[in-house]
Amino acid sequence: GHPLFRNMPTTIFEKMSSRARELGAINLGQGFPDGPGPHEVLEAAADALFTKSNQYPPMAGLPELRSAVAAHYARHQGLDLIPEEVIVTSGATEALAASLMALVTPGDEVIVLAPLYDAYVPLIERAGGVAKVVTLTPPEWRITAQALAAAASGRTRLILLNNPTNPTAVVMRDEELALIARFCVERDLIAICDEVWEHVTFDGVGHRPLMAFPGMRERTVKIGSAGKIFSVTGWKVGWMCAAPALADLVGRAHQFLTFTTAPNLQWAVAEGLDKPDQWFAQMRSDYQASRDRLAEGLEAAGYAVQPSAATWFLSIDLPASGIDMDDVTFCERIVEEAGVAAIPVSAFYPDGVVTTLVRLCFSKADGVIDAAVDRLARFR
Amino acid sequence: GHPLFRNMPTTIFEKMSSRARELGAINLGQGFPDGPGPHEVLEAAADALFTKSNQYPPMAGLPELRSAVAAHYARHQGLDLIPEEVIVTSGATEALAASLMALVTPGDEVIVLAPLYDAYVPLIERAGGVAKVVTLTPPEWRITAQALAAAASGRTRLILLNNPTNPTAVVMRDEELALIARFCVERDLIAICDEVWEHVTFDGVGHRPLMAFPGMRERTVKIGSAGKIFSVTGWKVGWMCAAPALADLVGRAHQFLTFTTAPNLQWAVAEGLDKPDQWFAQMRSDYQASRDRLAEGLEAAGYAVQPSAATWFLSIDLPASGIDMDDVTFCERIVEEAGVAAIPVSAFYPDGVVTTLVRLCFSKADGVIDAAVDRLARFR
Ligand SMILES: CSCCC(=O)C(=O)O
Ligand SMILES: CSCCC(=O)C(=O)O
Repeated sequence: GHPLFRNMPTTIFEKMSSRARELGAINLGQGFPDGPGPHEVLEAAADALFTKSNQYPPMAGLPELRSAVAAHYARHQGLDLIPEEVIVTSGATEALAASLMALVTPGDEVIVLAPLYDAYVPLIERAGGVAKVVTLTPPEWRITAQALAAAASGRTRLILLNNPTNPTAVVMRDEELALIARFCVERDLIAICDEVWEHVTFDGVGHRPLMAFPGMRERTVKIGSAGKIFSVTGWKVGWMCAAPALADLVGRAHQFLTFTTAPNLQWAVAEGLDKPDQWFAQMRSDYQASRDRLAEGLEAAGYAVQPSAATWFLSIDLPASGIDMDDVTFCERIVEEAGVAAIPVSAFYPDGVVTTLVRLCFSKADGVIDAAVDRLARFR
Repeated sequence: GHPLFRNMPTTIFEKMSSRARELGAINLGQGFPDGPGPHEVLEAAADALFTKSNQYPPMAGLPELRSAVAAHYARHQGLDLIPEEVIVTSGATEALAASLMALVTPGDEVIVLAPLYDAYVPLIERAGGVAKVVTLTPPEWRITAQALAAAASGRTRLILLNNPTNPTAVVMRDEELALIARFCVERDLIAICDEVWEHVTFDGVGHRPLMAFPGMRERTVKIGSAGKIFSVTGWKVGWMCAAPALADLVGRAHQFLTFTTAPNLQWAVAEGLDKPDQWFAQMRSDYQASRDRLAEGLEAAGYAVQPSAATWFLSIDLPASGIDMDDVTFCERIVEEAGVAAIPVSAFYPDGVVTTLVRLCFSKADGVIDAAVDRLARFR
């Protein structure tokens, strides 16, 4: 036998970011904003270094942050979580790892929907599970009862999904979420729902947590990320929310993966979550303006842009843009020749089945977006 | 099948800290200092929030921190690491988890030395491995070639050890390290050496990294912790150092466990590692004075104190103190009746074989130590 991670590639995001650094390209690959983050949240993080303890906070997180997360979801999503149902993690990646390490027993099957975040399958396999991939395709990315049923077996224990979805930039339709909920209830599955993009939705479309669907309150692990909400992706403060029995299980994995998370950042996030609704609306509308700026620029340059209802991403459709290259080739060419890094959507499929789309990140200053559009226009 | 973590207890450190919080006891259980941490290091962490990026740093850590770790070990331990051999992690716990997830294939046997940190065995088992425990006993805790050989088989792939050692407070003797090195070379094993206490040694005794022993440069993963070096246990900034092929493997696990670590804390640690030798000597001598204060107070109160050559811990020997209780009972009684939390050393043994010792943490202000001594004196 050889170690299970040996054949796993370096994550595409890291690979593209280091290419961008090497070549001095504009990085629209890995998803991160280029702003500094909200000043008062940064101030709170700085203050806490001097006014609060820098020692181990409780393993499940500062009580104040656990309460803030519960209150935040009550206010924004109508959920009835208690603080004890919230476990703070070192980013959403750790929440995913802890959930899978806690809930997958060797031999279990886990249903995933592709395109998917590239950590999902390696983590499932490292936990001893088998990923059963439901392949969704553009332009609708629609989830059907048939596709779910076809992926299920007597060994299915979990479904792992991401809504709003990276890289497709869709918000799942209510009927799809209802269908997933029925599927979980009928087959007695646990759902791990990666909802890190819950606040970054556009055009007045709201986010509905899977946990709020009938039968899901006790069988969902809801994952969130302060890095996405507050545009500080480096902070690595996340959480997982689940009913007490499930929270207890995922907490046991968490204690042996990172144990806990920097308290000054936890204090700052607790403060941030309490911001008035207006703050979140403004954040959304700022990113929506950036989305529109990138989309309009690319369209003017002759690129066919896919709709983006959420996340920091939009995709261009290569064949519809009259470009006769697969996504990997196109990304290789534009990083080298145009000086723009992007992510090939095939990297989000275990079997690379969709090769026509290229993902671009628009959470950037106007000048950066304009410069990237300019370079991509000249590349044509 | 049921999830592998289901039957795992909550870590003893968390359990005792929450008992202490509930009861308002003085917490000499979980290992953490009660000071704020070095002011300039805190300042550096605060400044970086405003002067550096809060977005994803590179997956393996900021180049500046990787260089600082390599330079630090060159200066303090004579190691010849290059920055590419250093991977920054979200604390030493994540470094342990990543190393084991990367290097253990289901069925592999991993040799561990007990007493041991309570994350080791759950992580080995979660990775699909089998822990083979070499039991060390007081007062010498001596490692012998016979004991190692008896634990080994054709399926042994790794040895995982902690030096200086928590909770025994010993620095392994050179001949023991040489013996472990020979054992690894002869059997072609990889060593994961948890050296988080490397800087906290007393009475002029220095730390020798296992990696420096013959044949070990290419087969050791050396784990370190900024939390222990700079007395900020909540920061959760750690690292693993290994030759390029090994570093590449452990990095692949790291990318899917936390991906990366808060950049402002990384900047601060990079700055801290560059402090002059005098700073580290002062830190050691401050903790040595605290050790002596606790030891002398306890001895005056009639407790038999074990030697402590390193770490923030010393143990009392119950039978030698004329106390007819096992360690768990004693810890239960003192937290309830005396208002002092401590850790029973049996918690560091998978099979609880040694039940005569109780660990106390002395990285506390003089007044806290004195108050705890006072309470424990009155308890007698
Ligand atoms: C951990 S790097 C991945 C960042 C991200 O969410 C993305 O670019 O899709
Ligand atoms: C992660 S809590 C453990 C702290 C510690 O190192 C100890 O108390 O031994």
